[in-house]
Amino acid sequence: MKKYDGFCLWFTGLPCCGKSTIADAVAEELSQRGLNVERLDGDIVRQSLTKDLGFSKEDRDKNIERVTFVAKLLSRNNVATLVSFVSPYIQKRQEAREQCHNFIETFVKCPVEVCEQRDVKGMYKKAKAGEIKDFTGVNDPYEDPPNPELVLETDTETVKESAHKVLTYLEGRDLIPQKVEMSEDEVYTPEEEEIVKKRLADLGYL
Amino acid sequence: MKKYDGFCLWFTGLPCCGKSTIADAVAEELSQRGLNVERLDGDIVRQSLTKDLGFSKEDRDKNIERVTFVAKLLSRNNVATLVSFVSPYIQKRQEAREQCHNFIETFVKCPVEVCEQRDVKGMYKKAKAGEIKDFTGVNDPYEDPPNPELVLETDTETVKESAHKVLTYLEGRDLIPQKVEMSEDEVYTPEEEEIVKKRLADLGYL
Repeated sequence: MKKYDGFCLWFTGLPCCGKSTIADAVAEELSQRGLNVERLDGDIVRQSLTKDLGFSKEDRDKNIERVTFVAKLLSRNNVATLVSFVSPYIQKRQEAREQCHNFIETFVKCPVEVCEQRDVKGMYKKAKAGEIKDFTGVNDPYEDPPNPELVLETDTETVKESAHKVLTYLEGRDLIPQKVEMSEDEVYTPEEEEIVKKRLADLGYL
Repeated sequence: MKKYDGFCLWFTGLPCCGKSTIADAVAEELSQRGLNVERLDGDIVRQSLTKDLGFSKEDRDKNIERVTFVAKLLSRNNVATLVSFVSPYIQKRQEAREQCHNFIETFVKCPVEVCEQRDVKGMYKKAKAGEIKDFTGVNDPYEDPPNPELVLETDTETVKESAHKVLTYLEGRDLIPQKVEMSEDEVYTPEEEEIVKKRLADLGYL
């Protein structure tokens, strides 16, 4: 397979807007297309990389800084890197953009009321009751991306539709392979196959 | 080029034993052979990933935990990952071994007296004078690796010799390409070249 360039697909948006669900769907498809894929989200990094951090502005910033460092290293080494964090502040997303290779800001846009309805853990409710401090969308601001590469409107799109948008964008930039099938006229004679095999071996592909 | 498996080459040893110098030399050669290469060492990660940490045992452990997380992600994505830290404790190196793909513990072995002579920053002197606490080799222990994949004896080997040992080991495990030259009998006729080119394009290599 052609060696595809790495990238950092950065999903940002309110809690429960659908970031992780879409990122997981896209990651699954990219793995099937043979790419090296990594997912970075809160559930993953807060167990190890950022387990000392809470949710104050300062700690959120540190969290994003460390994730950015990792995404930088992965994206410049041909890894399809899918990052999903609320990442509410423009400044920190801008820093991620400057550091990561092929940074693609993906704004997962959804009205806060819809996010709240989807919130099975009841976090919005707790935040409104004052039980959670610094909760984005309730008592901490979310700064909309002024110029994102992609906007996914998850109140009107299905997960499949949003994932398709992302995949089409990545295909358009030639960052991922298309889904292809072998056609009839790509069949070789045995002699041709031998030559091809030998050359592939010489080049180190086999 | 064949897609080589990633690995984590973990250099451990006393301060000023030569870890970073050898790791840099190996990294340079691996880049020239066309691999994706990353270097993780104190100078790099303490600026970003672990800038909140000092040198107490607890902080050193956290430092190694975060580096391990990054090395895990890189090594499982076909990146040649070269890590150089004093990393004095067996337990933390063991955890890194369990998490990283193709973990290769490389003990950079050198008598403490020789390390001290090489110490241009005078850290050993300061540690002996009590100005630096928890300095490995002076007032904090270094636990020798009981069973490292590689031992480099930098008091008797040159940097080139040590680097050569590492490269030979990696070649032996087929983790890196050999240095190869194109020989005369690998020249193709124009017709053969056409077939090869078309097939390479079909396969997505071109």
